[in-house]
Amino acid sequence: MHDHDTILARAKALSDLTGAGPERYAVIAANLIAVWEPPTLTAQSVPGLIDHTLLAFDATEKAIEQLCADAARHRFKAVCVNPVWVATAREMKRRLGARYAIAAVVDFPLGASTIAARRAEAQTAIADGATELDLVIGIGLLKSGRFAAVYEGIRCAAGLGAYLKVILETSALTEAEKVDGALLAVLAGADMLKTSTGVNGKATPDDVRLLRTVAGTVLGVKAAGGIRDRATFERMVAAGADRIGSSASCGIMEEWG
Amino acid sequence: MHDHDTILARAKALSDLTGAGPERYAVIAANLIAVWEPPTLTAQSVPGLIDHTLLAFDATEKAIEQLCADAARHRFKAVCVNPVWVATAREMKRRLGARYAIAAVVDFPLGASTIAARRAEAQTAIADGATELDLVIGIGLLKSGRFAAVYEGIRCAAGLGAYLKVILETSALTEAEKVDGALLAVLAGADMLKTSTGVNGKATPDDVRLLRTVAGTVLGVKAAGGIRDRATFERMVAAGADRIGSSASCGIMEEWG
Repeated sequence: MHDHDTILARAKALSDLTGAGPERYAVIAANLIAVWEPPTLTAQSVPGLIDHTLLAFDATEKAIEQLCADAARHRFKAVCVNPVWVATAREMKRRLGARYAIAAVVDFPLGASTIAARRAEAQTAIADGATELDLVIGIGLLKSGRFAAVYEGIRCAAGLGAYLKVILETSALTEAEKVDGALLAVLAGADMLKTSTGVNGKATPDDVRLLRTVAGTVLGVKAAGGIRDRATFERMVAAGADRIGSSASCGIMEEWG
Repeated sequence: MHDHDTILARAKALSDLTGAGPERYAVIAANLIAVWEPPTLTAQSVPGLIDHTLLAFDATEKAIEQLCADAARHRFKAVCVNPVWVATAREMKRRLGARYAIAAVVDFPLGASTIAARRAEAQTAIADGATELDLVIGIGLLKSGRFAAVYEGIRCAAGLGAYLKVILETSALTEAEKVDGALLAVLAGADMLKTSTGVNGKATPDDVRLLRTVAGTVLGVKAAGGIRDRATFERMVAAGADRIGSSASCGIMEEWG
């Protein structure tokens, strides 16, 4: 399933189907022969890989402010929050003089809204201060073979000026759907491929490895869902992740001492 | 907590805070003294109370079509689906010559998106054929005391021509938050108060009773979450529900014979 010729042939078919154009297909072809070197992990480098995350439906403003304060203190790469809290994260960043990026989830966690709604959610998150988007792929559409709709549902959030991560929810997909989802994300302009929402599914090293195969050295790979200790963190990076989403980031940093 | 004077005083305070205007406050005052009579349940009347529901993140087009076929066969009141499937439900309705209403969830299941995104999602769902909206209240905002933002987050979906249900996620709220959420929903123009998403929480008869107190005889009350058999269905209606959301509706109808 995952040999490069098969993936490349599938990329060609999906590129033709979606009208994605030859540039993105060329990116995939280059990615498949690129050699990825995992980053070296030290107490100094690890925070730069972490999206410090709070997406609970009952998270309060106070909890978001604490998340931001922790991100500033540990110098985490980003905070990852629901759209309603992006403005709060921006205000906290200003107040703290912090440097974290602000990632907003889009169509989270179901990936089952319309293109216009996804675009509006992405645009307003960016207007409120988001510099990154964690967008859920159209999972039901993907499982229904509606590839053009999946593609458009990603493309509507690409090119808006924010770094675009596409969440595949790999644990709910067949091997063929994982490849198709990853390829459609690259074709539609994703900057990073992400395994899971953490709500409906979790990351595995095998899925990270597959995403890194498609991502090459040009795109990023984010593992998220169930990463709550240093050992799991290290396994995900060894498998190909260069970004880790976790709600347990502070505990993980303590393990690094 | 739930005596009428306390609720009415709270309604006045929230009405002043949000600038909701005297008409909606008057609705609440009238609701609190209205006497609700539960509908009689028969094999013929029960389907008219049911929102036949499929909101799973991995639901396929085929599964949605089956949902619609079942709704047509049983003459359920409505199908309740994610926005991406509203157009499919409309096409099935046309094809089947069915009469079900089409309910789309909005900002589901977290209630944590922005007002602009919620409005866009509601508008596009209506454009695709939704005649009812099941909108999740801003749960985190409510728990943070951001009442004006909660109110605006409901009002943005009111007056768009669709029947507006507001999901409170009662099982995650304190008693005071339940009252505030219900009052804010009525003030902002809700047509129906709904207990739960079914994802993050379930309905209880006590919560249904509270919502019916605020809803009076003018608004509806929908119980959803964990209603999978006839006995639970009957308990919810006895407590004050006149709409039931369930994914197990066909099984429930079998129990009615």
